[in-house]
Amino acid sequence: MTLEDALRDTAQLVARTVDQILPRPEDAEARLLEAMRYAMTGGKRLRPFLALQSGHLFGVDEVNMVRVAIAVECIHAYSLVHDDLPAMDNDTLRRGQPTTHVQFDEATAILAGDALQAMAFEILSDPLTHSDPYIRCQLTAALSRAAGCHGMVGGQMIDLECENIESNIGMVTRLHQMKTGALIAFACESGAIMGRASKESTQALRAFAHDLGLAFQVVDDLLDVEGDPDIMGKSAGKDQDSGKATFISILGLERSREQAEILASQARTHLDLFDEKAELLREVSKFVLTRHK
Amino acid sequence: MTLEDALRDTAQLVARTVDQILPRPEDAEARLLEAMRYAMTGGKRLRPFLALQSGHLFGVDEVNMVRVAIAVECIHAYSLVHDDLPAMDNDTLRRGQPTTHVQFDEATAILAGDALQAMAFEILSDPLTHSDPYIRCQLTAALSRAAGCHGMVGGQMIDLECENIESNIGMVTRLHQMKTGALIAFACESGAIMGRASKESTQALRAFAHDLGLAFQVVDDLLDVEGDPDIMGKSAGKDQDSGKATFISILGLERSREQAEILASQARTHLDLFDEKAELLREVSKFVLTRHK
Repeated sequence: MTLEDALRDTAQLVARTVDQILPRPEDAEARLLEAMRYAMTGGKRLRPFLALQSGHLFGVDEVNMVRVAIAVECIHAYSLVHDDLPAMDNDTLRRGQPTTHVQFDEATAILAGDALQAMAFEILSDPLTHSDPYIRCQLTAALSRAAGCHGMVGGQMIDLECENIESNIGMVTRLHQMKTGALIAFACESGAIMGRASKESTQALRAFAHDLGLAFQVVDDLLDVEGDPDIMGKSAGKDQDSGKATFISILGLERSREQAEILASQARTHLDLFDEKAELLREVSKFVLTRHK
Repeated sequence: MTLEDALRDTAQLVARTVDQILPRPEDAEARLLEAMRYAMTGGKRLRPFLALQSGHLFGVDEVNMVRVAIAVECIHAYSLVHDDLPAMDNDTLRRGQPTTHVQFDEATAILAGDALQAMAFEILSDPLTHSDPYIRCQLTAALSRAAGCHGMVGGQMIDLECENIESNIGMVTRLHQMKTGALIAFACESGAIMGRASKESTQALRAFAHDLGLAFQVVDDLLDVEGDPDIMGKSAGKDQDSGKATFISILGLERSREQAEILASQARTHLDLFDEKAELLREVSKFVLTRHK
């Protein structure tokens, strides 16, 4: 199977299961449920893909693994909804569509984000995800850490603070390890947790995620400078306008491009202990370099 | 021990343990951690009190139970931070202090709320809370349901929607069962989960919480009309100004007062199967009627 096919299959599986797992809007709180579904629509589904491929390495049943994949996507989607708010990045376009607070309103967007976060932990703690409560607790512990003040949310805070202070490559790296890296690492590790993998395998996936996440972010910074807003479905040049510290502002375009390639190739070496089951994960590390959105 | 003593002891225990459990502000994300601690300061600590008393009924060690109590308080505190935002209730005063977005800024308040929600699930999934992962999963499942789109967040959404539509007593009751009742019910039930209580005991606590939560809310509505803003530490008359449907706007002052008394006394009858260990829970049902803030 080619990576394109696999990504498309994942996107379809995720869309179908989102439809099954997320509550349907039929009560007074319909607007909230609609906004939650709206926020969970579209996107590359990169984190669900990584989770499903990670589960694939250890023979985890896709029926269970897709639930973990959607829990990660709930956290990712809620973070985008909140990051796009006027008080934060003030974005009006996301994935080519109006952002959630534009489509609905600010209050609904805040609440939809809050409810999606709760939903992620509701999904993980459900026996349908895994019959062993120890595994479900490990997932909950790992995702809550990745999403919280020492992970994604902490990274977003540093990102906001960085607009006002002189920054260096160490700070920008730490920021992205927290802001996007922690959740990508959870996705990559989640299959190992579900499949009770060896410590060695788990650490390899964590190292893979670390390099992949940074490569992904460097390319994100490059796209913000060089990307086509029509293809990306969101505004470009926002980082520069806001005076944000990025890999580009510190390393320059040329060295950032090199850095992304080094990171992506380094990511692949961590997969050496896996056989051809890891082929799509290897390909995804190439894909992050060539993506246009 | 009198209820006043017990409430004060709970408040001190919670303040001390918040200090131990929540991360200390020393990194770049210091502002976020400060805002989280700020949001977790003060208040009646009613939900932690209910959780601790519920644990007391079944002999749960306070060292463990206080962690559950703080997880509930994390969810409650985050919901206040988000509810106070300009896009929501736009409150500048809470517990006699500037609200979190006034003291810090909107972006920090949104993120602090998000991080507190993640923290709640990190606490519950930690083996320090309970050695049995099955219990930890039950707690996570129950709290995520209580906090999510069919619980607290859904209730807040209905509350916002209600400003624009004709409402009746059934709708207002459902709204509050979701908005405040679900979390109070979790607090009351959490000791039963931690102590592996019988189904009968668990249901009794749920029924107690149901009536107590509604009584609490009716009194909240009464205080909004009749309360002293100086004692309450927040503005009064907000519900009427915003045209919100409340028990008062539907039942009137007199019948609302009666209703609160009926609910509180009904709450106590659900505790009949517990011995004197439930004395403080019985008292708290009287306290909700006489509170001034």
